[in-house]
Amino acid sequence: MSEHRNPYIQELVDDGKKDYLYHLGLDSGMDLPAMFGDVKFVCMGGSAKRAESFAKRLAADLDLGIDPESLKPIGKTERGSLFKVGPILSLSHGMGMPSMSIFLHEVTKMLEHAGATDYRYIRIGTSGGVFRPDDEKAGTVIVAEQAINEELQPIHKKVKLGKVHYYETWFDEEMAAEVLSVRGDIRAQIGKTMGANDFYEGQGRLDGALDPEYTEEDKLEYLNKAYDVGVRNIEMEAPELAAFCNRAGIPAALVCATLLNRLEGDQVTSTPEQLAEFSENAQTLVVRYLRKKLNLSVDLEADAI
Amino acid sequence: MSEHRNPYIQELVDDGKKDYLYHLGLDSGMDLPAMFGDVKFVCMGGSAKRAESFAKRLAADLDLGIDPESLKPIGKTERGSLFKVGPILSLSHGMGMPSMSIFLHEVTKMLEHAGATDYRYIRIGTSGGVFRPDDEKAGTVIVAEQAINEELQPIHKKVKLGKVHYYETWFDEEMAAEVLSVRGDIRAQIGKTMGANDFYEGQGRLDGALDPEYTEEDKLEYLNKAYDVGVRNIEMEAPELAAFCNRAGIPAALVCATLLNRLEGDQVTSTPEQLAEFSENAQTLVVRYLRKKLNLSVDLEADAI
Repeated sequence: MSEHRNPYIQELVDDGKKDYLYHLGLDSGMDLPAMFGDVKFVCMGGSAKRAESFAKRLAADLDLGIDPESLKPIGKTERGSLFKVGPILSLSHGMGMPSMSIFLHEVTKMLEHAGATDYRYIRIGTSGGVFRPDDEKAGTVIVAEQAINEELQPIHKKVKLGKVHYYETWFDEEMAAEVLSVRGDIRAQIGKTMGANDFYEGQGRLDGALDPEYTEEDKLEYLNKAYDVGVRNIEMEAPELAAFCNRAGIPAALVCATLLNRLEGDQVTSTPEQLAEFSENAQTLVVRYLRKKLNLSVDLEADAI
Repeated sequence: MSEHRNPYIQELVDDGKKDYLYHLGLDSGMDLPAMFGDVKFVCMGGSAKRAESFAKRLAADLDLGIDPESLKPIGKTERGSLFKVGPILSLSHGMGMPSMSIFLHEVTKMLEHAGATDYRYIRIGTSGGVFRPDDEKAGTVIVAEQAINEELQPIHKKVKLGKVHYYETWFDEEMAAEVLSVRGDIRAQIGKTMGANDFYEGQGRLDGALDPEYTEEDKLEYLNKAYDVGVRNIEMEAPELAAFCNRAGIPAALVCATLLNRLEGDQVTSTPEQLAEFSENAQTLVVRYLRKKLNLSVDLEADAI
């Protein structure tokens, strides 16, 4: 079993105490090595339904001999859902960095208790695109090279014991390139991903419940500034994911569908079918990447919509 | 129908356009006045399962002639679950302020589209207590008078267009007093509630996946400082709830069960039965408050555990 990244957890284990992974509903007294020792990839996204449907898709697409209908969530499902498909986990982390952070901590402790090695994290998300007319358009998948915070800085601020700490937000360059390399017929590009702490005012939307105290012009100025520092899409988790994985030394990728172009509007007005198609493309890209890493053949056309 | 708090939404409505409440799966083209025009209370909490079980409890406890088993979620359930029990909504908002903020914006827009008036928000949550030996102990329900951020300040910081804005975090004093007045045999007290952006390092826990870079001593110093400014419990939503409701002019209360005493430890080690009992007490307090507001008799003993 690997040495724990947090000496305090190592101490807990050495003392023969249990580590309660409260939000997963698991603990280190369970046979985690048997359950998760072989895990090599953790795929994650906001919604529990999507964690389940992606797990079923993995079972169907990865030639692992696993019946998609046999998949059941592991642990408790009150806060998030966890599925295992061979060496791959499919996990939901809710919306926003505080929620995601909980699952990053607990799934990482779980994998370390299990003695898993060389594992990687991939977040498959939805986002708003930031595209100028000559660029890509809504539906394009953005593979992040770096996370940008809502103050347009390439850092993640984290308050610990009341003091602000700053962490780097690069994603694994090789992993991003490898994901992009299997795009085939899917519209995808590398870009910086901004992660905001709010869907409305934090992303410069005008259509929240409260008077935002800024104008359409102010908004466009902000989004254009974001574009100029390289931001191509906006979601709510990127800086936490990058900072956590940098600190932990876990290679990570962030692969997001864009559901709209924020330079053209605030509201998500596409039909449920279009939105499903956009999300599906991001998933397809990750499935192809996983097939490649598992030494399976990769079809760069057949899956795409 | 009431004038919208955000002039931009008023414009949208006046232009005859639809407002898409994306995360609720509802839009202003639906007959929201018929669906939600009579709403007076929105009860909310992190988990979708709890939103459902609380809705069923309301149906059973409020003499409204509603069959608990007839309750179905309204709108989509991918991001949160919404139930209606007479004039009361039961809504899940996920974990953390970014996630909660989405639902605060959308449920408020929904109620304004519906023409609902004089409605109030109540968050029923779980938290870690901060109790010294002569105080209350784990299980005590804290009714918040004010929210404190993780820097131990009574403010909420919100980044809009890249700039930090500061908002006040008082809760409605009268409402807090009225909730507390029906405590009867439930251990409950008024206190300040700290809302952190992280469950592990943001709350001074030592048991995350990463080396926290602080010691047990540092942690206790921080928690004692929090105690000294009046903090009696720690969760992950308080400042956003208070700031949003202050800006919107919506009276709000925050009622949290404490699942452990953080001055005694980091891990949630109580049995699922104990945890359920602790949560149940916070719910019971709110059910009693609602019965009082609906002019129903309030039994200050029979419900308590």
